Amino acid sequence: MPTKSEKTQRRIIDAANQLFYHKGYHRTSFTDVVEEADVPRGNIYYYFKTKDEMLRAVIKQRLETISVMLKEWDKHYPQPLDRLERFVQIMYDSTPALLHSGCPMGSLNVELGKDQPELKAEAKALFDIFHLWLTRQFADMGYPDEARELSMQLLARGQGIIVVAQVYQDPGFLERGTKEINRWLEELARYA
Amino acid sequence: MPTKSEKTQRRIIDAANQLFYHKGYHRTSFTDVVEEADVPRGNIYYYFKTKDEMLRAVIKQRLETISVMLKEWDKHYPQPLDRLERFVQIMYDSTPALLHSGCPMGSLNVELGKDQPELKAEAKALFDIFHLWLTRQFADMGYPDEARELSMQLLARGQGIIVVAQVYQDPGFLERGTKEINRWLEELARYA
Repeated sequence: MPTKSEKTQRRIIDAANQLFYHKGYHRTSFTDVVEEADVPRGNIYYYFKTKDEMLRAVIKQRLETISVMLKEWDKHYPQPLDRLERFVQIMYDSTPALLHSGCPMGSLNVELGKDQPELKAEAKALFDIFHLWLTRQFADMGYPDEARELSMQLLARGQGIIVVAQVYQDPGFLERGTKEINRWLEELARYA
Repeated sequence: MPTKSEKTQRRIIDAANQLFYHKGYHRTSFTDVVEEADVPRGNIYYYFKTKDEMLRAVIKQRLETISVMLKEWDKHYPQPLDRLERFVQIMYDSTPALLHSGCPMGSLNVELGKDQPELKAEAKALFDIFHLWLTRQFADMGYPDEARELSMQLLARGQGIIVVAQVYQDPGFLERGTKEINRWLEELARYA
């Protein structure tokens, strides 16, 4: 059972996570998080002194969630192709959120990448965890030498489709894009 | 000859443009622009009352610059393929800025797209001007029915490559990505 303190901390992190994603990091104030989490301001300082500290906790929590998800996929799907297609399916499953707020890891990295090298290095970990896992899948599929590049290509395809689908509020483009990616992956699996 | 007033206004817009691109829109304060433009604060209010007004002027100026550039390309390159490859070359020519601050139009749209529908609609015009021009090139190349979709695909490819190249500070990925896009365009031109 989580303690009351753990529950409060979790509530703050969840509120910050939602706000950072749906409003953006810079547009979210410390006060926004206090209000969204519905925790007395004085109490918040016990857990987090700054917005940057909140961001670190949000990234840590996202990484834990992703790590659990990837392990489940590893268990559930024995074949690299199925695992890769399961990854692509996130884009399809998250269509409304992606059209509204963009990619959670992409938009955060684009925002922090501009002139905050320290925070950017933290946010990059969200790409790293997928990049490492995708690289392993491409290697297992039969492309050990190209695996790293293929993983970056897959990440880039996803990011690009999401940006353009968001700009044009076009769920069809997102859907056609994911299908096109799957065709590419199936072709790679066939010729491995 | 521009008047002194026009020159001052231009200096403010240029400063805002640089800051919005290199720091991000929300992270740039009105005061940042005042300081960067080196114009007395009181004078600035004569030109712009709010940061949003500055953004509108920045977008308008960027659109004018892009419009002149596209007209020059139309004049200089008679073939759609050459025009499209000229567009792709921007990514190669702007490598240091893209690695540092991302795509000027992509990152602005990602930032404003989250929860500012009015500013987002303004920023979208930066995509529209390219999208319209690219669509015309693909139609002229021999793909009138698919032109709009091909244009979105090209925009998405560029955006995705830039995001990933920025996250991984990898100019090589940007270069290989632009070459891959050119191969795709050349193949389209060949089979048109």
